[in-house]
Amino acid sequence: MAARIDDPYGAFCTDTDAYLEGAAEGPLAGLTFAAKDIFDVAGHTTGGGNPDWKASQAPAAKTAPHVQRLVDAGATMAGKTITDEITRGILGENAHYGTPVNPRAPGRVPGGSSSGSASAVAGGLVDFALGSDTGGSVRVPASFCGLYGMRTTHGRLTLDGMLMQARSFDTVGWFARDAEMFAKVAAVMFETDIPNAKPTRMIVADDAFEVADSAVREALEGPMEAVGDLIGDVTTMRLSDVGLDEWRAYQQPLQSREAWETAHEWVDRCNPRFGYDVARRLVEAAEVTDETIATAQAGREAVQARMAELLGPGTVVCLPTAPFPAPEAGQPQSQMWDRRSRIITLTCVAGLLGAPQMSLPLAEVEGVPIGLSLLAAPGEDEMLTGFARDAFA
Amino acid sequence: MAARIDDPYGAFCTDTDAYLEGAAEGPLAGLTFAAKDIFDVAGHTTGGGNPDWKASQAPAAKTAPHVQRLVDAGATMAGKTITDEITRGILGENAHYGTPVNPRAPGRVPGGSSSGSASAVAGGLVDFALGSDTGGSVRVPASFCGLYGMRTTHGRLTLDGMLMQARSFDTVGWFARDAEMFAKVAAVMFETDIPNAKPTRMIVADDAFEVADSAVREALEGPMEAVGDLIGDVTTMRLSDVGLDEWRAYQQPLQSREAWETAHEWVDRCNPRFGYDVARRLVEAAEVTDETIATAQAGREAVQARMAELLGPGTVVCLPTAPFPAPEAGQPQSQMWDRRSRIITLTCVAGLLGAPQMSLPLAEVEGVPIGLSLLAAPGEDEMLTGFARDAFA
Repeated sequence: MAARIDDPYGAFCTDTDAYLEGAAEGPLAGLTFAAKDIFDVAGHTTGGGNPDWKASQAPAAKTAPHVQRLVDAGATMAGKTITDEITRGILGENAHYGTPVNPRAPGRVPGGSSSGSASAVAGGLVDFALGSDTGGSVRVPASFCGLYGMRTTHGRLTLDGMLMQARSFDTVGWFARDAEMFAKVAAVMFETDIPNAKPTRMIVADDAFEVADSAVREALEGPMEAVGDLIGDVTTMRLSDVGLDEWRAYQQPLQSREAWETAHEWVDRCNPRFGYDVARRLVEAAEVTDETIATAQAGREAVQARMAELLGPGTVVCLPTAPFPAPEAGQPQSQMWDRRSRIITLTCVAGLLGAPQMSLPLAEVEGVPIGLSLLAAPGEDEMLTGFARDAFA
Repeated sequence: MAARIDDPYGAFCTDTDAYLEGAAEGPLAGLTFAAKDIFDVAGHTTGGGNPDWKASQAPAAKTAPHVQRLVDAGATMAGKTITDEITRGILGENAHYGTPVNPRAPGRVPGGSSSGSASAVAGGLVDFALGSDTGGSVRVPASFCGLYGMRTTHGRLTLDGMLMQARSFDTVGWFARDAEMFAKVAAVMFETDIPNAKPTRMIVADDAFEVADSAVREALEGPMEAVGDLIGDVTTMRLSDVGLDEWRAYQQPLQSREAWETAHEWVDRCNPRFGYDVARRLVEAAEVTDETIATAQAGREAVQARMAELLGPGTVVCLPTAPFPAPEAGQPQSQMWDRRSRIITLTCVAGLLGAPQMSLPLAEVEGVPIGLSLLAAPGEDEMLTGFARDAFA
């Protein structure tokens, strides 16, 4: 076992050390990374942010393909990072393992569920880090910690060797401090070159900006215009005729039902300990009715049809990644519950669509980072990555 | 700090040692006892079976009056015992601290929430132990562990210095291995002599026996007849015209609502960790509607009116304490959830009435203890205690 890296931010799991020396040569040689503690590393028990999950698992027999690919490309894995419990959380507060520091805004949450990965990258402990995004778990910490971070197209990259949450929403993503590094990792993850790229059209999602705090809207205005100037063709419109709150009301029961399908057998058998907020979401998930699911599924299909109209090749939708900068850590649940819903109101668009969305760390509100997002049609991951690199590296 | 007593049953809290030397003289001189970790002992933090509750509390400034009275009467307190989390549980399985052994039926649950107190007494580690009974938390472990145990009349004994659950249901109780010891403690708790006593009439609650497993009914038949022979006047009847399941449906929301009123501020502020089953009950408690409460409150009043008709002075109702002997420990939640409801179907009668109920360890099913209960009108605590002593000591 290699020496542990210094971890002033509480970003790493202390009990699931998983150090993997990178190959001597390769496109990522000399770089270091971390992986959310939902990725298997052979010989280590995947913890998933919950001690009772960990206690119920055997050590992984095999290393997750994404981790292996990065190591084979030369990157050294420094360790595993804290995640919200079984990836259920958007703020990055873990009742068992604590809240990783947001190095860009100490005292505020890092965002979750890929909390430790964002914290480790933002704090400069590693060059990049793997996360996962089911309902916003890469995009939100990217926004809160001032990082480049992407939710990839659903189904584009394997989920083998990863702890699942909700099968029709789960995706892999990663974080980097700059767009060049982000693209370098992307080339390995996608096993392809990242081309020079520029969208041909940008849709400014008016209804998405309305969800954000006014200070966020103001802070994002300049960067949004700069991106628009690069692209040229800019249209402002509403994405949803029924309202994004309604779209959120499709995402939440669908994701919850699937998350309950994933977790219920273990929950029943082991009666695990959860932070109350996580347990509450599981209990509510168990209560979702088939009728609600049918309505939500029809809603999802309508969203997909609507977005297919808008998202031709080369088109991007511009929206705030999150409605506000990172809130202060340690607030009462009653202060956080509605915030979660507001976040999902923005993140649900890509979730329902299975589309890639990249958060760009282009703004701050009173010194606290806030991300601007570009969302594209499923499969346009390289285009987003290439554009971000070409425009901002 | 005195030497810890040997604890082969995992009955005691390891981290809230609270040893109090008994007075040299007094009616309980030379005896030892334990108290459920919801009773304050000055200088110690009351844990309540939940590590996050404990972490949010300061050490108690004052010792709970009941503990002090017992110590002043000569009994030495050996320590504090494990309880179900914040007293919410009827089986005695604590996700944080484990399940105290049922010394009378190893491998089976001890019953809860006064689990460690029952375990410590049944295992002979102490002479008696304090517990509390909100929905059955003394009666059920008494039944499962083969002990004398009583829920006292609601409001009869102070709840000062105790962690509350549901104000209109919370009561103090205690356990002993024999009826003589039980009465000796009762005299100190009630601050009165325990008179010789014999009920003048026994009502056999037919609908309560119907809730029990047939093996339990058979096992209790002999003891029930023996008790009836002592009393002489025996009537068999149904307590409820709407069914005891309906009575349970009054108890559960009322208790849940009050439990949520007690806990919600702490839950909101601290987002504590709970075993999933406990969190589930809290989430469901938060969801109880005012309409349900109104119906349940009207139901409770009807139960009280009905029972006031039946329970003249000297009348006792005879019923099984629990519908079955202690189930095996460590079973899936899905196996336990309905069992909880069946238990409450029996324990709710005294709960709704605020009446005293004493569980007598008079039977076994295949070597596993099962209690026969006598319930009397509020205030008849000494009569029940005195009768048990006179009949069974």
